[in-house]
Amino acid sequence: MYQLYYHPGNASLAPHAVLEEIGAEYELVFVDRAHDQHKSAPYLKLNPSGRIPVLIDGDLALFETAAICLHLADRHPEAGLAPAPGSTARAHFYKWLMYLATTLQTELITYFYPERLADDAAGAAQVKRHAEERVGGMLDIIEAELAGNGNGGAFLAGDAYSLADIYLMMLCRWTRGMARPAAARPHLARHIDQVAARPAIRRSFAAEGIEPPYFTLPGSAAK
Amino acid sequence: MYQLYYHPGNASLAPHAVLEEIGAEYELVFVDRAHDQHKSAPYLKLNPSGRIPVLIDGDLALFETAAICLHLADRHPEAGLAPAPGSTARAHFYKWLMYLATTLQTELITYFYPERLADDAAGAAQVKRHAEERVGGMLDIIEAELAGNGNGGAFLAGDAYSLADIYLMMLCRWTRGMARPAAARPHLARHIDQVAARPAIRRSFAAEGIEPPYFTLPGSAAK
Repeated sequence: MYQLYYHPGNASLAPHAVLEEIGAEYELVFVDRAHDQHKSAPYLKLNPSGRIPVLIDGDLALFETAAICLHLADRHPEAGLAPAPGSTARAHFYKWLMYLATTLQTELITYFYPERLADDAAGAAQVKRHAEERVGGMLDIIEAELAGNGNGGAFLAGDAYSLADIYLMMLCRWTRGMARPAAARPHLARHIDQVAARPAIRRSFAAEGIEPPYFTLPGSAAK
Repeated sequence: MYQLYYHPGNASLAPHAVLEEIGAEYELVFVDRAHDQHKSAPYLKLNPSGRIPVLIDGDLALFETAAICLHLADRHPEAGLAPAPGSTARAHFYKWLMYLATTLQTELITYFYPERLADDAAGAAQVKRHAEERVGGMLDIIEAELAGNGNGGAFLAGDAYSLADIYLMMLCRWTRGMARPAAARPHLARHIDQVAARPAIRRSFAAEGIEPPYFTLPGSAAK
């Protein structure tokens, strides 16, 4: 039985949804961010970077969201959440999963925590503004890919649904407070609605108390 | 035959060294950064994010450094540069490779290009200072891992050399201009010296014109 250390809507949502897609037995362990539990000594023993999530798999304490998702997909190949290693499809999958994890996700972290790169509130506001603009450019690249300019499949990494689609959906949700959220782009809107409609994804939303609208703020005209 | 679009010392160094370790046939394609070739229309067709490297493998144009390294390791399992998919060793490997690619590498990019998050030179200097400090904390986490606080193997992802060690070595080289470069930490210094001493790594350095000192500035007392 897996254990997933999570906080609602955090980066734990992708591995949570992956566990639901796989149909694996697992238990959610709530991380109390309000009391900085993720910076506590016991948590830092699991993940020295103090970030959420952590997956426990027997003796293994695994951190880094993309690593957890890849590990789960490799352990459960029958779930079909990643193409077979060594295939061209796997290469496309790696490409977009890495783009999400190293580029879009990290820029979103800068957007949410701009104070980490600034001396004061004015500096942080400047960083946040630039990060939001840069996230927009990254979403435009993904929109073009989904529109068929690149690999051109129905899903991010080609013709088959993969965990890269789940990961993308999670990150798009994080843009819902932006002036131009991901869901304002037609191909992205179609894509994330399709992912969010899957029963496994709905179950992970329900367990974390995530309610519609999923990809915009309540009352927003962005979509 | 592979083709690798590279620029000396850039993120292309890791896949270049991986190709040397594998002993695959490949050709280096120089990207003329001085003339912004990586922002040109033909290059953006290969990689819409305009970054270096790109790997060409037949009809496949692959971008994202970690994706290229993973793809090469999966295509050439006999080279032993990544543990077998589905194993616990593979999970540890994913964890540290992802930590390098999503955390240390992205913070180093902020350190090198702080103007992307700032309105002016003063703002950029502020961002750069914070990024350098944050890189230091990340290197401390890796130093503790190499010291045996975590998985505790001789290499980053355990007992066996893997492409995560190559990736780490490349990123440590990028810190050589910092007040406290990676090489100022004893376990990291030992580790990267060991990686840089490998014949395959030396060949990639030679082909890119990379000369010692590899991990400090000439004349530096940091190490």
